[in-house]
Amino acid sequence: MSAGWFRRRFLPGGPLPAPRPPRPRSSPVPYRRPRFLRGSGSGPGTADAPRRPDVRPVRSPARGRALPWNAGYAEIINAEKSEFNEDQAACGQLCIRRCEFGAEEDQEWLTSCPEEFLTGHYWALFDGHGGPAAAILAANTLHSCLRRQLEAVVEGMVATQPPMHLSGHSICPSDPQFVEEKGIRAEDLVIGALESAFQECDEVIGRELEASGQVGGCTALVAVSLQGKLYVANAGDSRAILVRKDEVRPLSSEFTPETERQRIQQLAFVYPELLAGEFTRLEFPRRLKGDDLGQKVLFRDHHMRGWSYKCVEKSDLKYPLIHGQGRQARLLGTLAVSRGLGDHQLRVLDTNIQLKPFLLSVPQVTVLDVDQLELQEEDVVVMATDGLWDVLSNEQVARLVRSFLPGNREDPHRFSELAQMLIHSTQGKDDGLTEEGQVSYDDISVFVIPLHSQGQRSSGH
Amino acid sequence: MSAGWFRRRFLPGGPLPAPRPPRPRSSPVPYRRPRFLRGSGSGPGTADAPRRPDVRPVRSPARGRALPWNAGYAEIINAEKSEFNEDQAACGQLCIRRCEFGAEEDQEWLTSCPEEFLTGHYWALFDGHGGPAAAILAANTLHSCLRRQLEAVVEGMVATQPPMHLSGHSICPSDPQFVEEKGIRAEDLVIGALESAFQECDEVIGRELEASGQVGGCTALVAVSLQGKLYVANAGDSRAILVRKDEVRPLSSEFTPETERQRIQQLAFVYPELLAGEFTRLEFPRRLKGDDLGQKVLFRDHHMRGWSYKCVEKSDLKYPLIHGQGRQARLLGTLAVSRGLGDHQLRVLDTNIQLKPFLLSVPQVTVLDVDQLELQEEDVVVMATDGLWDVLSNEQVARLVRSFLPGNREDPHRFSELAQMLIHSTQGKDDGLTEEGQVSYDDISVFVIPLHSQGQRSSGH
Repeated sequence: MSAGWFRRRFLPGGPLPAPRPPRPRSSPVPYRRPRFLRGSGSGPGTADAPRRPDVRPVRSPARGRALPWNAGYAEIINAEKSEFNEDQAACGQLCIRRCEFGAEEDQEWLTSCPEEFLTGHYWALFDGHGGPAAAILAANTLHSCLRRQLEAVVEGMVATQPPMHLSGHSICPSDPQFVEEKGIRAEDLVIGALESAFQECDEVIGRELEASGQVGGCTALVAVSLQGKLYVANAGDSRAILVRKDEVRPLSSEFTPETERQRIQQLAFVYPELLAGEFTRLEFPRRLKGDDLGQKVLFRDHHMRGWSYKCVEKSDLKYPLIHGQGRQARLLGTLAVSRGLGDHQLRVLDTNIQLKPFLLSVPQVTVLDVDQLELQEEDVVVMATDGLWDVLSNEQVARLVRSFLPGNREDPHRFSELAQMLIHSTQGKDDGLTEEGQVSYDDISVFVIPLHSQGQRSSGH
Repeated sequence: MSAGWFRRRFLPGGPLPAPRPPRPRSSPVPYRRPRFLRGSGSGPGTADAPRRPDVRPVRSPARGRALPWNAGYAEIINAEKSEFNEDQAACGQLCIRRCEFGAEEDQEWLTSCPEEFLTGHYWALFDGHGGPAAAILAANTLHSCLRRQLEAVVEGMVATQPPMHLSGHSICPSDPQFVEEKGIRAEDLVIGALESAFQECDEVIGRELEASGQVGGCTALVAVSLQGKLYVANAGDSRAILVRKDEVRPLSSEFTPETERQRIQQLAFVYPELLAGEFTRLEFPRRLKGDDLGQKVLFRDHHMRGWSYKCVEKSDLKYPLIHGQGRQARLLGTLAVSRGLGDHQLRVLDTNIQLKPFLLSVPQVTVLDVDQLELQEEDVVVMATDGLWDVLSNEQVARLVRSFLPGNREDPHRFSELAQMLIHSTQGKDDGLTEEGQVSYDDISVFVIPLHSQGQRSSGH
């Protein structure tokens, strides 16, 4: 594999409230210097994703400093929460090799043609929990999984319509009609590649964590600009929104124990043994007590979007599968998200009850047809981890974007500064921006992606 | 149980293209005269749903005659397709008794107070398959299941906020706060009651069909007007839309093997034995053949919304779990819908493979806040079985509604005539209404419900 397919730079966190140096962990996390791959001139093989990816804690640079990325079209600013900052990020150019087919069917079907490329851009945010290990692995791995998945279908992506057979050989004359009737378009192959890449990355993380005796998981929010479209893939509670002059549009939705209640309850209904008799599948407004026994109380089961009343039995007094409200809602009393990567070994404290069966690694993918938008220079996508959205609404972020960008047209770092300002505004540094002066103590990472330059850059293959 | 809680009238079908008299079936369907219950004066017990509901074929009245219902606010017109018309309908007033609690907790908690009522209206369409038996049972049963489910929670429905405990006794002082935080409103109890009623009705149908040696299933689309809201519950491929002067809003979505592909594939993934080695879970643009072996072809699995390519193996040549496109899509080669009532005994032809595990009886419920709409006299809800929507789009139906009603303001039967006209327009009787002059040969049933009179009628309890 040649270098240059992916130019990436690790983006260390900038601690905004109070930097704390990383301290040694009981299961040590090996540290390697991030490798900066700027050009496409390095020799073949050097840019391959390492078979054993780097796993490193995030360093703490000077207090309050923004760390603008040289490309200028995407900026990430990292606050910090924990001993090891659990947010990680990756971004860069995504170069997908075009493949050709050998003359003979028996031959290796994939022949590398490094001079042909489909070029895109990639941004990713990973919000770790239980330590930074999974987030770091994801930041080091997911893009290479995605590249591999995209290269496996790139022939279909660049065709007018994805062919029934990837080889282009037609077996049934009406194959194009079948594909047409199913409405299968090139973008469906990118969606499929993103879905498969998340799953592949999750498997890699599972193997790596097990091999290194580490634990942890992370959410993943990825944006890919490709062939005039922006794909946003989300597994977790980060969020991406489109902000234009007259429009604010969510590009992702959150996956938490609350939003995925029915799926999670359904699984516990089908496999009650996953709860080991310790939890109740049913949802009640609060945890029940002995005094509730025999009373008719509000409840919901897996098949219900509405509520009903049931007579409380002894088994209803168990701890609920999903408990708490809003930001406090937890799956099995442990986890605040229901999709993401990692967590293969995660168990309920002092039990053998696993969380992984209830988690999905597959993302929800939304597609923004950038080429169809009449782009203005200040149209941006804001991607951020949950810490930002806990404190600022979509509309508040949009207001900040709209008030900041027009006055700073000449500033080459304005997107970086906007990202920094968004984080400041969640930390009580800009009064009156958040409702009731709310402050976030969570890790926060923000990308501000100007679509105007994307529209110009994404020239397709 | 007292009479008058539900005034209902069976609405026989009006055969529009060519009436055919019912012929005897090999498993005979007993016929009973429909009972017309107009007043509330009949003695206690007479309006109970029979423990063994009527099962009857639909009679064929005079050709082309509309059969307006006396209430004037809802009209159903029935075309015919099959030997026995498989569409059934029910509508009428829904009177829910208010219950009081006994002084002692040990006592029977429900004390009937027949003088207190919560009054609403009920409309239901059932599109049968495999014979009319399930649809007739549903038309005879579902409303009583719903009444029972609503009466069980009515105390919560009429409270400002549903109480944590139905008894009203408070165990924890902050219970109202927990209910508030969960956002539980009276309408959630109606949604829950509709969900439970569909499930209860499905169980009744299962028992009744087994006891009478009959088979079949049906879709169910129900609208309930209650406390200033219209609840639309749908399990199947019928559809309800709101038509106003400047708005067309879908009030339901269809549940077919295509729209529920991921849920169905997921179940086959978890329980592969449900396919008995005869079907493949995977989706391909067409059924694969021997020539496809070893080729990379387009496919989707349960976790994918996008598409990818896979190398065809021998097991991929099996018949697909979901096959066909659009109206032709079938679950296990057999059924065109994925939700509904009945079908407990339905098996794939010449096999022991059951369809029921893949079907859901639980409806999706949407709520229209009628009291919040500034109602115009010509605002209506159109409910119809799939035959109408196969041929007319929502917009086309809205155009027909808007062109018909204003010119017929003085006609007391105008809603009936509109329903009739909608069916005519699917049968080539009104040229130029459907795209490319499409004609429907399916059963079609239509309700046109004027919301203006509903707004006046639904006075709450």
